[in-house]
Amino acid sequence: MPDNKISMAVIKRLPKYHRYLKDLLDKDVHRISSKELSRIIGFTASQIRQDLNNFGGFGQQGYGYNVEDLYHEIGKILGLTKPYNTVIVGAGNLGQALANYTSFGDYGFKLQGIFDINPRLVGMRISNTDVYDMEDLGAFIKEKNVELAFICTNKEGAQDVADRLVEADIRGIWNFAPVDLNLPEEIVVENVHLIDDLLTLSYFLKEKPETEA
Amino acid sequence: MPDNKISMAVIKRLPKYHRYLKDLLDKDVHRISSKELSRIIGFTASQIRQDLNNFGGFGQQGYGYNVEDLYHEIGKILGLTKPYNTVIVGAGNLGQALANYTSFGDYGFKLQGIFDINPRLVGMRISNTDVYDMEDLGAFIKEKNVELAFICTNKEGAQDVADRLVEADIRGIWNFAPVDLNLPEEIVVENVHLIDDLLTLSYFLKEKPETEA
Repeated sequence: MPDNKISMAVIKRLPKYHRYLKDLLDKDVHRISSKELSRIIGFTASQIRQDLNNFGGFGQQGYGYNVEDLYHEIGKILGLTKPYNTVIVGAGNLGQALANYTSFGDYGFKLQGIFDINPRLVGMRISNTDVYDMEDLGAFIKEKNVELAFICTNKEGAQDVADRLVEADIRGIWNFAPVDLNLPEEIVVENVHLIDDLLTLSYFLKEKPETEA
Repeated sequence: MPDNKISMAVIKRLPKYHRYLKDLLDKDVHRISSKELSRIIGFTASQIRQDLNNFGGFGQQGYGYNVEDLYHEIGKILGLTKPYNTVIVGAGNLGQALANYTSFGDYGFKLQGIFDINPRLVGMRISNTDVYDMEDLGAFIKEKNVELAFICTNKEGAQDVADRLVEADIRGIWNFAPVDLNLPEEIVVENVHLIDDLLTLSYFLKEKPETEA
């Protein structure tokens, strides 16, 4: 556990730094100033210096940042130093879309199984992963040491799935069902409420005057 | 345009209020105190009073909030007083998942068409909506008065799609491709960067001590 608390706002920006640093490495860029990083990432240079100072300050006056060091350091802060076993619950379109995001695997998130209640889907393979019966979820989580589950069921089924996951000692839940789950405090949860994002878009569409042709 | 600027944090909470108020209406609850609303929604009662005061304060001492009034008032603030024509670009699993979210239609987001470059998908119907050739995107946007597009392509194709949309005078983009788009300032954009959410989860999993059995 860190001694100093990092603010939620900083934590939320870290994945973006991580993504852009990865792109730079892919382009063989090994050194970058806060000014140049600011230009490509869209945060101000002073914001960047302040953010990265939270972790000991990797930049050197007149040199800038070593991209590789910074990338690995942020990866460590984000907990990417060990793989996580994951499962997807709900093999509909969204579950299948997530199963096909091969980049999750690149980050160390290893998809071990997909679960559904629909007997027509059980036994199928999606993105090289077997679809299992929901009844076997709890035993599978324990046996395969799964730490993280993606819930891709409908609203009605989500809480029951969450209860089973908690019962099986899951550590984290990524919830895509359009409902807020009742979970014990020790479970880490991220909700992707798509309708909330869409309504935020709608708010800003309303606020912006329509351009006249 | 509103006279007083509402903070981003408040705007981001409005859809959640809207969702919960809808649930209350569905359960025939027509009146609620900030304390009770606090219990179900998870914000503090003082946070709720403060948030809702931004819009003129709908609560009455000793009565609480009229659920229906509050629901409609927040809907108005969120721009839900008129329908929006939308298109989905990219008919893969994610595009199909979004096409099947019928609840978007309930909020007034009318899906007019789905676009893809894959000739095997063009001509199909997904969730009662036709899949069209990407070449026809610009003309379609203009003809059908489409204001909002959901980009569900891969990383490589997203910027080209965005350029076509801008060229056709789109007003808003909901971007699910794992890349930040270059867009003119007048375009409203919301990015759903799934990997960023997943890395935030990973951060918190690292921070929380594993429970011992």
